[in-house]
Amino acid sequence: MKEKFSWAAGVIQEAGELIKQNLSLYSVNTKSNAKDLVTDIDIMVEEFFCKRIKQEYPADFILAEECTVAEEVRTDKNLWVLDPIDGTVNFIHQQQNFAISLAYYENTCGVFGIVYDVIKGDMYSCYKGQGAYLNAVKLLPLQVKKISESLVGFSHKWLLGNQLDNYRKALAAFRNYRYYGVASLEICYLAQGLIDVYLSGNLKPWDYAAAKIIIEELGGCIKGLQGETLTGLEFTALIAGEKSVVDQFYELCR
Amino acid sequence: MKEKFSWAAGVIQEAGELIKQNLSLYSVNTKSNAKDLVTDIDIMVEEFFCKRIKQEYPADFILAEECTVAEEVRTDKNLWVLDPIDGTVNFIHQQQNFAISLAYYENTCGVFGIVYDVIKGDMYSCYKGQGAYLNAVKLLPLQVKKISESLVGFSHKWLLGNQLDNYRKALAAFRNYRYYGVASLEICYLAQGLIDVYLSGNLKPWDYAAAKIIIEELGGCIKGLQGETLTGLEFTALIAGEKSVVDQFYELCR
Repeated sequence: MKEKFSWAAGVIQEAGELIKQNLSLYSVNTKSNAKDLVTDIDIMVEEFFCKRIKQEYPADFILAEECTVAEEVRTDKNLWVLDPIDGTVNFIHQQQNFAISLAYYENTCGVFGIVYDVIKGDMYSCYKGQGAYLNAVKLLPLQVKKISESLVGFSHKWLLGNQLDNYRKALAAFRNYRYYGVASLEICYLAQGLIDVYLSGNLKPWDYAAAKIIIEELGGCIKGLQGETLTGLEFTALIAGEKSVVDQFYELCR
Repeated sequence: MKEKFSWAAGVIQEAGELIKQNLSLYSVNTKSNAKDLVTDIDIMVEEFFCKRIKQEYPADFILAEECTVAEEVRTDKNLWVLDPIDGTVNFIHQQQNFAISLAYYENTCGVFGIVYDVIKGDMYSCYKGQGAYLNAVKLLPLQVKKISESLVGFSHKWLLGNQLDNYRKALAAFRNYRYYGVASLEICYLAQGLIDVYLSGNLKPWDYAAAKIIIEELGGCIKGLQGETLTGLEFTALIAGEKSVVDQFYELCR
């Protein structure tokens, strides 16, 4: 199985090269609304992954953001969860600060996850039970902290659109917040210690399935906003962080 | 005068080395409140600059964040405007994504400005009338864009704390927002095209005096939220961006 992990890391680096070669050649389309963007590079990279996975592991299933795979997805089987470009808005506006996110699950359990910051060349990875890494450097367990001394990553847009006064109060207890606009990487920033908690009102499996394996390896958790357990395959709001910091958040929401 | 500019760039690089040597050795204190932080490195770096400026240009005045200079500040004279570490929270939490910001003004007019991302080694600079640069690369004029296709950098904390429904409506018209927590660099990200507008409810001269010179060199403006002209030395709310994009914002606020 570790061969599958190494194989995946190699394919991700190939895909990264493909993206870099096409960085200024993309065209933009909208999806569900004018703010939901996709480029032809997203599609191309997803097709690249699907072709490689189907060649190497024809029995496996693929759950991917752009839904280029026609067949039914069986989440209870060998499953690849892919975002070919997470942070498409950053890709378009900044030509940096986007990531490839790829996870491998068996029977709804995460086996390994990789998040690759293509332009920085930073690869966050974890094979469950074998440590989490930023490139070749082993990441340390998440730190226990007070919320008042913690940074939280989240988008205020979710708060603006909802009457969520209890969350608003809890969020105000943090030292400060940041918003980078690329969920998979932001959860990896948490793994790296750049922020302490990450919260989102609306994520898809491909945004967090890989990063969840990394966070849990470091003693952290990713759960629903009322404490629900998640497999990593739900479409859901969530909070990620070291367990006692997340518990402080729940306490403040009461 | 260009000698003064070159001299300043050299001193900033020296200060950057000083910071890097002390990156893990700092101690934290609070200022006006528990969320307003300063480290002994902020103080040390400010003292380093003040000593060097007073040695080289004894007649010049200094306006600096940590107020380590005892003498009165004359803003109508030769004036250095300094933030030794802008983004102190990033400095403490991330050991990256902070900057030195240094501007030089004569008779309240900006002559040159330099913002230095110490860890990335990225130096944004402009000697007024001679082009703006990111390291050795000349930056291009700011692009004319629709607000609906623009990214805005701002902190939602300001909105949460105020009844500013007209600003809220205008901000919602942007494609999306980002918040990196380091004003001088965020305005330089705008110069670089990573975001399109930057807005803050509460800046100090040392946060934006240098970046303002860079933005104006690229055809952009930095003005008050009602369109007030700024010298760069005010304690103020402001908006920065390409002029027609900023005008769209004012229009939406009406």
